[in-house]
Amino acid sequence: MKLVLIRHGESQWNLENKFTGWKDVDLSPKGVEEAKAGGKALKEQGLVFDVAYTSYLKRAIKTLNYVLEELDELYIPVYKSWRLNERHYGALQGLNKAETAKKYGDDQVLIWRRSFDVAPPAIDKLSEYYPKSDRRYADLTDEEAPLGESLKDTIARVLPYWHSDISKSLQEGKNVIVAAHGNSLRALIKYLLNISDEDILKLNLTTGKPLIFEIDKDLNVVSSPDSF
Amino acid sequence: MKLVLIRHGESQWNLENKFTGWKDVDLSPKGVEEAKAGGKALKEQGLVFDVAYTSYLKRAIKTLNYVLEELDELYIPVYKSWRLNERHYGALQGLNKAETAKKYGDDQVLIWRRSFDVAPPAIDKLSEYYPKSDRRYADLTDEEAPLGESLKDTIARVLPYWHSDISKSLQEGKNVIVAAHGNSLRALIKYLLNISDEDILKLNLTTGKPLIFEIDKDLNVVSSPDSF
Repeated sequence: MKLVLIRHGESQWNLENKFTGWKDVDLSPKGVEEAKAGGKALKEQGLVFDVAYTSYLKRAIKTLNYVLEELDELYIPVYKSWRLNERHYGALQGLNKAETAKKYGDDQVLIWRRSFDVAPPAIDKLSEYYPKSDRRYADLTDEEAPLGESLKDTIARVLPYWHSDISKSLQEGKNVIVAAHGNSLRALIKYLLNISDEDILKLNLTTGKPLIFEIDKDLNVVSSPDSF
Repeated sequence: MKLVLIRHGESQWNLENKFTGWKDVDLSPKGVEEAKAGGKALKEQGLVFDVAYTSYLKRAIKTLNYVLEELDELYIPVYKSWRLNERHYGALQGLNKAETAKKYGDDQVLIWRRSFDVAPPAIDKLSEYYPKSDRRYADLTDEEAPLGESLKDTIARVLPYWHSDISKSLQEGKNVIVAAHGNSLRALIKYLLNISDEDILKLNLTTGKPLIFEIDKDLNVVSSPDSF
């Protein structure tokens, strides 16, 4: 079976160099083109999908829709989960890199960038970024609703969805496409390719580039992309 | 609870005046604008949805996507079913009105247009329009896969989905939107408003116009649109 992972196209805030996280920012015009190009690349390879997964964020959902439209496969089932959302950047969300450095200092920023398990400053429940103030996340438990995540935290909430849903589709013999985010996809790739905590931080995914894995019925990775 | 039914925007074949049925024709540019306008109208009324249903045909799926994008509710679950597809027009699919009249005669065309339970000429299993030659319908039983439907036949395969899925969401207190087709929506409206076989034939739905029903927990219709 084929498993394709695709990071959403460039968003408005990628463009402005801001920490985006769970902020529901739209694709930029370039991001739309990247998504369509991703779909065309898959079509050229003759890939056909049975089921799709994406996050609750429009930059991933729209990327998926553009890809499926290029493939002429808009009719396949699409499942959405908050577990595929981008890493929640806590109090850093909405800040650009310069603002972050000014507020927290260059040394601290470097620690956040280079660490696997250090979370950003947490938001409180009055923050506009508190997940449960948004109806789409209202049913999350307090424990599930992030206030700010390390990459380790992100991985910990992505993988249960792999085990409960995505991997099940592969085991049923289905070809699967997952349209998601830099860090939620890192979680899957780290797990699939058994990448170390240190090395996964260096893995940067290209926006809109489909990453094609071949997976067998026992969920072993038979082949994986040459580049990311 | 609110139930909103919306017929897809104008398609390329509406424009060319052809029998479309299960042919997976795209929206025309005007159809895209109609879909967006439908979404804006719902947004102005402050409607918020919990779940969406649509067919396996891109003109309905894309209409739904445009509506959800206008509402900023792309994240809600979307369920697709062949049971919400347009009426299958059998051997008439792909013909325009003039071709149909020439091939079958004006009298016969009038009978098809004005009858509730007369099916069009059936296709055979070698036809390009035989559903099971398309992977999305491959799992349908021979009995389910239509070779050409009367409006009565269409209603008979739409209503089981109402009972098994759509009505269940309403009973759970959810606001529901259904993006579908002239005849699959006629099926739902006939059932909801108890319209006669004769009168339902005269009910023509405007493309891209949201039809808002208020439904109570016992699935009674509390209010319905003034016009269609």
